[in-house]
Amino acid sequence: MVLPLNVLEKSLNKRISLMLKDGRSLEGKLVGYDDFMNLVLEETEETKEEQMKKLGTVVLRGNNVVTIVPK
Amino acid sequence: MVLPLNVLEKSLNKRISLMLKDGRSLEGKLVGYDDFMNLVLEETEETKEEQMKKLGTVVLRGNNVVTIVPK
Amino acid sequence: MVLPLNVLEKSLNKRISLMLKDGRSLEGKLVGYDDFMNLVLEETEETKEEQMKKLGTVVLRGNNVVTIVPK
Amino acid sequence: MVLPLNVLEKSLNKRISLMLKDGRSLEGKLVGYDDFMNLVLEETEETKEEQMKKLGTVVLRGNNVVTIVPK
Amino acid sequence: MVLPLNVLEKSLNKRISLMLKDGRSLEGKLVGYDDFMNLVLEETEETKEEQMKKLGTVVLRGNNVVTIVPK
Amino acid sequence: MVLPLNVLEKSLNKRISLMLKDGRSLEGKLVGYDDFMNLVLEETEETKEEQMKKLGTVVLRGNNVVTIVPK
Amino acid sequence: MVLPLNVLEKSLNKRISLMLKDGRSLEGKLVGYDDFMNLVLEETEETKEEQMKKLGTVVLRGNNVVTIVPK
Repeated sequence: MVLPLNVLEKSLNKRISLMLKDGRSLEGKLVGYDDFMNLVLEETEETKEEQMKKLGTVVLRGNNVVTIVPK
Repeated sequence: MVLPLNVLEKSLNKRISLMLKDGRSLEGKLVGYDDFMNLVLEETEETKEEQMKKLGTVVLRGNNVVTIVPK
Repeated sequence: MVLPLNVLEKSLNKRISLMLKDGRSLEGKLVGYDDFMNLVLEETEETKEEQMKKLGTVVLRGNNVVTIVPK
Repeated sequence: MVLPLNVLEKSLNKRISLMLKDGRSLEGKLVGYDDFMNLVLEETEETKEEQMKKLGTVVLRGNNVVTIVPK
Repeated sequence: MVLPLNVLEKSLNKRISLMLKDGRSLEGKLVGYDDFMNLVLEETEETKEEQMKKLGTVVLRGNNVVTIVPK
Repeated sequence: MVLPLNVLEKSLNKRISLMLKDGRSLEGKLVGYDDFMNLVLEETEETKEEQMKKLGTVVLRGNNVVTIVPK
Repeated sequence: MVLPLNVLEKSLNKRISLMLKDGRSLEGKLVGYDDFMNLVLEETEETKEEQMKKLGTVVLRGNNVVTIVPK
């Protein structure tokens, strides 16, 4: 069985894409996380309604994340 | 009695479909879960307003899931 | 006094109907539950805006349930 | 001082009316509750936008209840 | 320092007014509360969009309360 | 490092302004708080859509507060 | 691995920008935080629908924060 946190561990230093509760999408390199699924991304790009914005390093509160997709 | 987590255990490596709080539907092969009903799906397909998108591996936060339907 | 979980226990293998937070109604045979009122239904039918859909076995997260009505 | 759970205890086998978060009103005989204020009602009637519906026995998740009014 | 629960204690048997998350206002005599700020009011009056309704005794779930104003 | 509760401690008996989740703003003298950031204000003024209302003493549930700004 | 709280620790006394659940953006110097990701900012500026407002010191409840971006 693949525990959800295992997928995060295997995705370290790889790019993942996230769907947030507020409808925004983020894509970035996962460099860290904790047990609450709070995440740290680097080289992050945000997409909202077709518009892209570079954000660099981002700390994300886990309770705002709906889906995490490793690339 | 069938505990909810038992259904997940029996559904391992089988396809399930999910209804999320934000109205999206996901279908994929369940490959893992934890006690919070965070889920790991593979070969996932997302459907929203009649449009389908292939997502591959997906980690899902349990608190965004409304219903889980084993196929 | 009738504890809420007692009602679930007595409803095992009987049909119940559920009202969910997102406005959907489900009706099915209750085959299991846990302390968080996560539920397992079988032979489930979903109704939304007058449309009915057969779902079979369904695992329901308790925090999405508003009311449980034994039939 | 009157603890909130005391009011529920005194209301056992009496009719109460409830206002839910989703705007529905329920009225029924309180036959049980637990520490989370999950409730069991019997001979329940639901009112929504002037329409009344008989529901019989209902288990209610406490976190959907806004106000409880003993009759 | 005045702890929030101290204000409730001092307000026992006095009238308070409440603003709820769903936009309703309640005014009544505070006769009890618990550590979760669940409240018991008596001689309660509800106001919503300029309309007043007498409710009598009311048990209020604390997580629906935004502000408590002693009169 | 300045812990969030330290800021509240230093703000005791001083005026603070609050932004609530429901869009209301409150300004008042902070006279108390607890570990959940439930707050007690005195000489409170509420502002909503340009309209000001005097509220006097107010107990605020911490989970409705977005930002606290010491004056 | 970079834990989310490590990023906050390294960002102490540096400017960060925040996206809140209610759509507001804040930018300020991070001077403190706690385990719940409650934050203390100084020299804070709020942006909402293209309008900027200076707020000075701000205490932020962590559960209102979606993303934290160190500058």
